[in-house]
Amino acid sequence: MAKPLFHDGLTVHTQSHDYPIVITEKTATENNSMAKQVAPYISGRQVLIVTNDTVAALYLNALTEELAEQFTVKVCVLPDGEQYKNQTSINQIYDALMAAHFNRDVTLIALGGGVVGDMTGFAAASFMRGVSFIQIPTTLLSQVDSSVGGKTGINHAQGKNMIGAFWQPQMVLADMSTLKTLPARELSAGLAEVIKYALIMDEAFLTWLENNLPAMMALDLAILGDAVKRCCQYKADIVAQDERESGVRALLNFGHTFGHVIETHQGYGNWLHGEAVAAGMVQAAELSQKMGWLTAEEVARVKRVLTLANLPITPPSIEVQTALDLMGHDKKVKHGQIRLILLKSLGKAVLTNDFDAKLLTDVLSPPRA
Amino acid sequence: MAKPLFHDGLTVHTQSHDYPIVITEKTATENNSMAKQVAPYISGRQVLIVTNDTVAALYLNALTEELAEQFTVKVCVLPDGEQYKNQTSINQIYDALMAAHFNRDVTLIALGGGVVGDMTGFAAASFMRGVSFIQIPTTLLSQVDSSVGGKTGINHAQGKNMIGAFWQPQMVLADMSTLKTLPARELSAGLAEVIKYALIMDEAFLTWLENNLPAMMALDLAILGDAVKRCCQYKADIVAQDERESGVRALLNFGHTFGHVIETHQGYGNWLHGEAVAAGMVQAAELSQKMGWLTAEEVARVKRVLTLANLPITPPSIEVQTALDLMGHDKKVKHGQIRLILLKSLGKAVLTNDFDAKLLTDVLSPPRA
Repeated sequence: MAKPLFHDGLTVHTQSHDYPIVITEKTATENNSMAKQVAPYISGRQVLIVTNDTVAALYLNALTEELAEQFTVKVCVLPDGEQYKNQTSINQIYDALMAAHFNRDVTLIALGGGVVGDMTGFAAASFMRGVSFIQIPTTLLSQVDSSVGGKTGINHAQGKNMIGAFWQPQMVLADMSTLKTLPARELSAGLAEVIKYALIMDEAFLTWLENNLPAMMALDLAILGDAVKRCCQYKADIVAQDERESGVRALLNFGHTFGHVIETHQGYGNWLHGEAVAAGMVQAAELSQKMGWLTAEEVARVKRVLTLANLPITPPSIEVQTALDLMGHDKKVKHGQIRLILLKSLGKAVLTNDFDAKLLTDVLSPPRA
Repeated sequence: MAKPLFHDGLTVHTQSHDYPIVITEKTATENNSMAKQVAPYISGRQVLIVTNDTVAALYLNALTEELAEQFTVKVCVLPDGEQYKNQTSINQIYDALMAAHFNRDVTLIALGGGVVGDMTGFAAASFMRGVSFIQIPTTLLSQVDSSVGGKTGINHAQGKNMIGAFWQPQMVLADMSTLKTLPARELSAGLAEVIKYALIMDEAFLTWLENNLPAMMALDLAILGDAVKRCCQYKADIVAQDERESGVRALLNFGHTFGHVIETHQGYGNWLHGEAVAAGMVQAAELSQKMGWLTAEEVARVKRVLTLANLPITPPSIEVQTALDLMGHDKKVKHGQIRLILLKSLGKAVLTNDFDAKLLTDVLSPPRA
């Protein structure tokens, strides 16, 4: 097993301001609570904690009580699940802010996974045209994915993440000890995004993951912290180059255009996002192979590392035309052309619309029974 | 009457990009249509025109038909009125965008007054985390007020403009000839904002208005165009210094904290925004007089110029405690203290929380019967 890297955090540089990601595995067990970590980044006296009913049962009381010693703290508990990532939930956050008579001084704290983080961030972006927010991501997926980049938003009935804003937090607290209470299936879903960074950015990290995934699956928090820090650093470097996704940032969507088809077709929440991305990355790798960029053995290696994380490598059966129609609704479509992120080699992704439509159709074709 | 100033437009500088305000009084009568003016600023092939049923009857067909020669044009017609400046209307815009399968390439065109402009701007800010938009303001108020500054948004049931974003248009077309179809009451409401610039920025412009208001009321489009250009330039100068309203930009809210009380108490839409601002400016001037900053004659001059524009100078009867509670909900509240914009002299405004609460109470007290 590799020696753990140093991982107490990093600084993210954005157009509006810089902010820290604090990575720790200590807060749940030592005199170093979530409240103590986030309090220095709260500028006013007003705090609204937004969470869901699942996470609330685990961490909300301790956080609320300790923050209430210094701040006026209100709470908004939303139902848990991607199917609630909608305007109704955003309106509940607005209503809580208005009922508390909070104003531009308020800091919103997102306590939960990516859904809570995305919704809280969008509410912060749009309440009084923008207030502060802090993220405490409690899932591996949100620690590696939504902690960096400022994407916030909700789903529209006809498409995922169709409504939102770019809005940066004041700080992110990634407390690895929250992963102890995360269902195994969600840990795996988070590992899909970790593996994604290896596939698009760094073949050496892929090797590191092949060696360390068993320890991560066994909840070695130090190793998980190393991986989170590496992923946040990869993403921070990319986002610093391209905050509004006009270029290189699009590479982070590797597997996501295929994955969105799976999620949308199956209904939000039935396949976890990370599971859909895992199967989508296999499809993208298969198309890369058909383009002559990956070997059959490399595609097999992609499947093996995903399997090591207990992730699906086969999409559900979806008619080709249905899949193509769903792709046409994806935000990555530019001037009517489907653009895909493919692999030139393991550890090197490219964004291209220069692929044979027949090859895409082959990859999308449901397996014959 | 003063000689008309040159007023074909100006350039607004913002953090994200610069954009032109084109001011013209020719489009409705010459070979210089709205469509020809805006087309060069549409970057993609997709256009959604958002308007309301009143304005649609006047200008929508011509604009749609001419743009359809170059673009895929869809239309979203909302009900007319401040009471529809809400989430339901925003959702109608999102639904129209999704139904058209439009993507990040789309340009939204706001054809109408401030309500249409604010909602279209917020939909543009939040659809796919931000797409382009163009404003064609068809009221004097929106020409002088919402053309510059990037404030977009909707009302919450408990407060005006509580939800929104800062988002800048690609261009603004202020076509003075649209004022010919504007109800006289709305022309007056727009003049309230014009007079506001004089009161907070430039006593010489106040004199100019005292001389030129009769011509403006008689729809002299050249004089109106001069005034629009001056107001846009004042506002552009302020916004360039302070895009997100952390300092000097707050002065533009002169009369608005008092005015919001009137609007909220009376229910949106019963008093026009400009009417409430007019009565609110009188209250702010009266408080300035009680502070010893304005003379009784100067307050009378404020009332006279507003009366020249056929605007109300007396607020409706509202209990003092109700008014104070409504003020507490205003976005201008900072750390629990009501901050007001008052006049140090005619043409010079200041933002202050250093006033005697008793004097504010006196100004807010309903007149005894």
